[in-house]
Amino acid sequence: MEIDYTNIKVVGFDADDTLWINETYFRDAEIEFAKLMAPYETANKVDQELFKMEMKNLPLYGYGVKGFILSMVEMAMVLSNGNVSNETIDSILNIGKNMINKPVELLKGVEEVLDELSSKYRLILATKGDLLDQERKLEKSGLLDRFHHIEVLSDKKEENYSRLLKHLDIAPNEFLMIGNSLKSDIIPLVNIGAQAIHVPFHTTWAHEQVTQEETNGKNYKTHSSLLEILNTLN
Amino acid sequence: MEIDYTNIKVVGFDADDTLWINETYFRDAEIEFAKLMAPYETANKVDQELFKMEMKNLPLYGYGVKGFILSMVEMAMVLSNGNVSNETIDSILNIGKNMINKPVELLKGVEEVLDELSSKYRLILATKGDLLDQERKLEKSGLLDRFHHIEVLSDKKEENYSRLLKHLDIAPNEFLMIGNSLKSDIIPLVNIGAQAIHVPFHTTWAHEQVTQEETNGKNYKTHSSLLEILNTLN
Repeated sequence: MEIDYTNIKVVGFDADDTLWINETYFRDAEIEFAKLMAPYETANKVDQELFKMEMKNLPLYGYGVKGFILSMVEMAMVLSNGNVSNETIDSILNIGKNMINKPVELLKGVEEVLDELSSKYRLILATKGDLLDQERKLEKSGLLDRFHHIEVLSDKKEENYSRLLKHLDIAPNEFLMIGNSLKSDIIPLVNIGAQAIHVPFHTTWAHEQVTQEETNGKNYKTHSSLLEILNTLN
Repeated sequence: MEIDYTNIKVVGFDADDTLWINETYFRDAEIEFAKLMAPYETANKVDQELFKMEMKNLPLYGYGVKGFILSMVEMAMVLSNGNVSNETIDSILNIGKNMINKPVELLKGVEEVLDELSSKYRLILATKGDLLDQERKLEKSGLLDRFHHIEVLSDKKEENYSRLLKHLDIAPNEFLMIGNSLKSDIIPLVNIGAQAIHVPFHTTWAHEQVTQEETNGKNYKTHSSLLEILNTLN
């Protein structure tokens, strides 16, 4: 079935791993953390346990680097049976600070796509990361003026997007979301009658994985690169 | 000079210490932290040093509980010369988790004021806290449906408010901000030509203190309680 984009007024872009590299930095941080935990556990086990700790803390800390650092600190104390050194905890804090200070590496075609679309649509950045982090990245990226504003969602579920549409004062079929996560950027949108285009990134956080059942019969497009969007929306 | 509120379309409310108690919980947490640090330093010195650490980390972590916890962990390692126990660090993490889980205690008159104003104006919550925290508090408070949406600002300076007005598509004189912090909720608004009403809270974070020079000649009202706003806007 051909998808009709003629109603679209606002285009929402996911930020991390859609506009710029992010997940790669988390993977690198996990590797560094596993090295620090090598006296206590295998890298594989550390990874698994850290993920469990993050999931346990997610309702409290939400998404973003700060919650990730706090989970690593807590995990280090558990894995070491309460014997981790201050030096190691300091190294963990530094892993986090380095993540926050990472340069912004734009993905291919981002500038071209935003330039082209910003003349036709109102563009917003819709992210569940930390606002300060995302603003900083947007400023470093030089893309700030292509976006009307940043929309921070505490989560990216149907109810969060419904609230966003109410806030934007538009109908669902006037909104198009573009992002790399089927779970966060695509399925909830399609479920509330909005549009979505999936542009996968090579790495996906375990928490963002979906089953084929969840995507079955859903009406959205997948593009292998952002640049293809220009063909779709032109 | 009489202030004219007839143009107002959108009223922004600060959240912490304007709608509900917040600063008190930070003060309590600082007292608990000072007790944990008693083997190393006097409470007074711990307070001073923690504030310095928070200011040092503010550009990285921004506002909110998570950055506060991370600063306490880092501070504990510094104050103890790298000898703080895992047990103490765990207690620090728990101070933070307890803060996040605190019940929401509404300040006097909040419900009445919001009920009355929400029939005449579009109300938004404008906060520089953590979105997840603020959403959680808003839900616990039962006030969610009085607000059009939550606006999270990475900081509350003139440029942040100017961006907010652009986002709301309104002129400065169509916006009224209500809050407890002269530095964050009042002065920047008055400086960009918007309206502001100051409702002080009994405790103000050192970072939010202002000098008389900064408020001199600024055109805003001060009310000793939220309920007085109803007289002003009626």
